[in-house]
Amino acid sequence: MKLLKAKILEEGQVLSSEVLKVDTFLNHQLDPELMVAIGKEFAKRFKDAGITKILTIESSGIAPSVMAGLELQVPVIFARKKKSLTLQDDLYTSTVYSFTKKEENTICIGQKFLNEEDVVLIIDDFLAKGQAAFGLVDIVNQANAKIAGLGIVIEKSFQDGGEILRDKGYRVESLARIQSLEKNKVIFLEEETANANE
Amino acid sequence: MKLLKAKILEEGQVLSSEVLKVDTFLNHQLDPELMVAIGKEFAKRFKDAGITKILTIESSGIAPSVMAGLELQVPVIFARKKKSLTLQDDLYTSTVYSFTKKEENTICIGQKFLNEEDVVLIIDDFLAKGQAAFGLVDIVNQANAKIAGLGIVIEKSFQDGGEILRDKGYRVESLARIQSLEKNKVIFLEEETANANE
Repeated sequence: MKLLKAKILEEGQVLSSEVLKVDTFLNHQLDPELMVAIGKEFAKRFKDAGITKILTIESSGIAPSVMAGLELQVPVIFARKKKSLTLQDDLYTSTVYSFTKKEENTICIGQKFLNEEDVVLIIDDFLAKGQAAFGLVDIVNQANAKIAGLGIVIEKSFQDGGEILRDKGYRVESLARIQSLEKNKVIFLEEETANANE
Repeated sequence: MKLLKAKILEEGQVLSSEVLKVDTFLNHQLDPELMVAIGKEFAKRFKDAGITKILTIESSGIAPSVMAGLELQVPVIFARKKKSLTLQDDLYTSTVYSFTKKEENTICIGQKFLNEEDVVLIIDDFLAKGQAAFGLVDIVNQANAKIAGLGIVIEKSFQDGGEILRDKGYRVESLARIQSLEKNKVIFLEEETANANE
């Protein structure tokens, strides 16, 4: 996705060979127009998949998801990272370790929001080692719902989350795939460069 | 806002005389179309206020805010509830107690995102005792930015957050103002009923 990659090159900060900071448009400050474009792109890629629900995880997945939900005309569920007093129903839960934040979270969603008739698009801002994605996949599986695929804004393809998911047969659509952050420089995967004028 | 109030009456669950659960469209599952309508309503009410930034707090404030930001064509910043490794810059911080979750959080935003030239619209999903709102006001004040007002999706007017903010001179625009949740029933403020055909 050309617009997104341009934004990453322009505003992304490479903090290390593993960490890309995109807090000016995705993780802390949000660019609403870009979120619309991202939502439309996810919707375009999954328009024939029969999606009934989008599942994401708080917080950075919410904006891209709500824009995709608007396009696909389906509700968006965001998994919570822990229980609150107003979230007491029967829950599907899974455990997710964040390498970025160095902490383990229980993520949960109310059971009433997913059932075996649902076809779910999982959306998240980043895919690296896949921890959050595995947790969301686990939750959809607990609900016996179908997973249409995963829509990822930025995939760090030099980490193995994407490969593991694709090897398991899941469709993973990443709008920007980063091959390397070495030497303080963002290098996108070749296939992405080839499609740069998409 | 008629559509919102209809949704509250239809899907809201009164858990006690103080707690309204709206997890089917605002706090856990999101209704994207309703989020658009809410964003447009905030934009309409603040369209002449010269807004340059919207400030909200993760997670339930994000969807209404990004839709308002889209309409007003301004960026949205969501305050984080704690630090992460990718949020290391100089921060504005404030302390917020959540009565719902019975926990205290440090909320923070990167200093680079707000400055004294900004005119800020603060948006949040709920206004009750005002803790989150006070924290966000505090952060805008630390940045010496101007506060145009607060846009609230649901105000529990029987708690004192709204009154305290209005007494301090802040413009508070709440799309649904709830007078009471007694006897398991949602009663909106009179002024809201009078404007029900807005």
